[in-house]
Amino acid sequence: MLTPIDYPISLDFDAENGTFEPCPQVTPRHLSDLKEMFSDQSTVAQILRENDPLIYEIRYYPFTTTKSDMALAVTRIFPGTIGNEFYMTKGHKHQREDQPEVYYCVRGEGFLLLDTLEGEFRAIPWRAGVITHIPPMWAHRVVNTGNDLLVFIGVFHLSAGHDYDIVARKGFAYRVLSRNGKPELIKQD
Amino acid sequence: MLTPIDYPISLDFDAENGTFEPCPQVTPRHLSDLKEMFSDQSTVAQILRENDPLIYEIRYYPFTTTKSDMALAVTRIFPGTIGNEFYMTKGHKHQREDQPEVYYCVRGEGFLLLDTLEGEFRAIPWRAGVITHIPPMWAHRVVNTGNDLLVFIGVFHLSAGHDYDIVARKGFAYRVLSRNGKPELIKQD
Repeated sequence: MLTPIDYPISLDFDAENGTFEPCPQVTPRHLSDLKEMFSDQSTVAQILRENDPLIYEIRYYPFTTTKSDMALAVTRIFPGTIGNEFYMTKGHKHQREDQPEVYYCVRGEGFLLLDTLEGEFRAIPWRAGVITHIPPMWAHRVVNTGNDLLVFIGVFHLSAGHDYDIVARKGFAYRVLSRNGKPELIKQD
Repeated sequence: MLTPIDYPISLDFDAENGTFEPCPQVTPRHLSDLKEMFSDQSTVAQILRENDPLIYEIRYYPFTTTKSDMALAVTRIFPGTIGNEFYMTKGHKHQREDQPEVYYCVRGEGFLLLDTLEGEFRAIPWRAGVITHIPPMWAHRVVNTGNDLLVFIGVFHLSAGHDYDIVARKGFAYRVLSRNGKPELIKQD
């Protein structure tokens, strides 16, 4: 249970680094946390026998008040691939049907993948300066196709809820793979 | 009446300039639009006899869907003073009691003034990189104390509503005035 904060809160955000202070919660996502999301399962198993690389980190600030629950999340995705698939977030859909989100890419390059998981898909080329509105009921995932950090801010409501299972179960319509060093969208069966 | 957009929308945001594309709505605020907000009314009248300077501009994107109404506003405040009072926004309070807002200063320096208009006040020193959560029922105003543009992003809900009249009637507890070239917070009677 969060203590409501009915007074203003300010954060110092470092867009280059993808961190802010004060930060009450950092969630690291290692390969083992999203191993089933990658296509090349033999490479996943091979890597995990040696180590468990950090794929991305999320920093949250839940702006919970007695009357509202807007929240901020800053995600930094490291550069890299698992086999030929670029590092990416797990991806999730909001549990509530009326909850959108605003994403703002402040550093790096990649794709924002959006999928209703019911036939509609978009891959939005992302770079610093792109702001995207994710309508309710679209699952969202971010892929880092660059050689450096990809950093983005999300603003959403805590009550939206996060459904990761549906993404693990249904998958996105396309994967972003590295072909001759360049990202390519590959349709999934 | 807005047409719902139930598909993703992306904007190209230029943080240095405080503009984005595509942009369906730009609201310019000239001195005449907020003349009653400044303390030095004889200087206001004198300036308005000659011209009507642009104090700030707001660019909106209403992300209206059939189920949600999150919106984005980017405000660019020009540098300058009216008498010895720095250029600032009109300031408003949300009409609904359960509507917060997230502000992110991406360029410039100044103050975010927050006031419940019922005895509680905060002046938050602002510069690029500061993100502030404005809880419900706090009136908010931004003051540009620098020599250059101040740019900030706001994320809120259209249903929040904007009450400008209460700010015009009650005023903020403090004004930001230039004294020997430096900003100073001056308590109002």
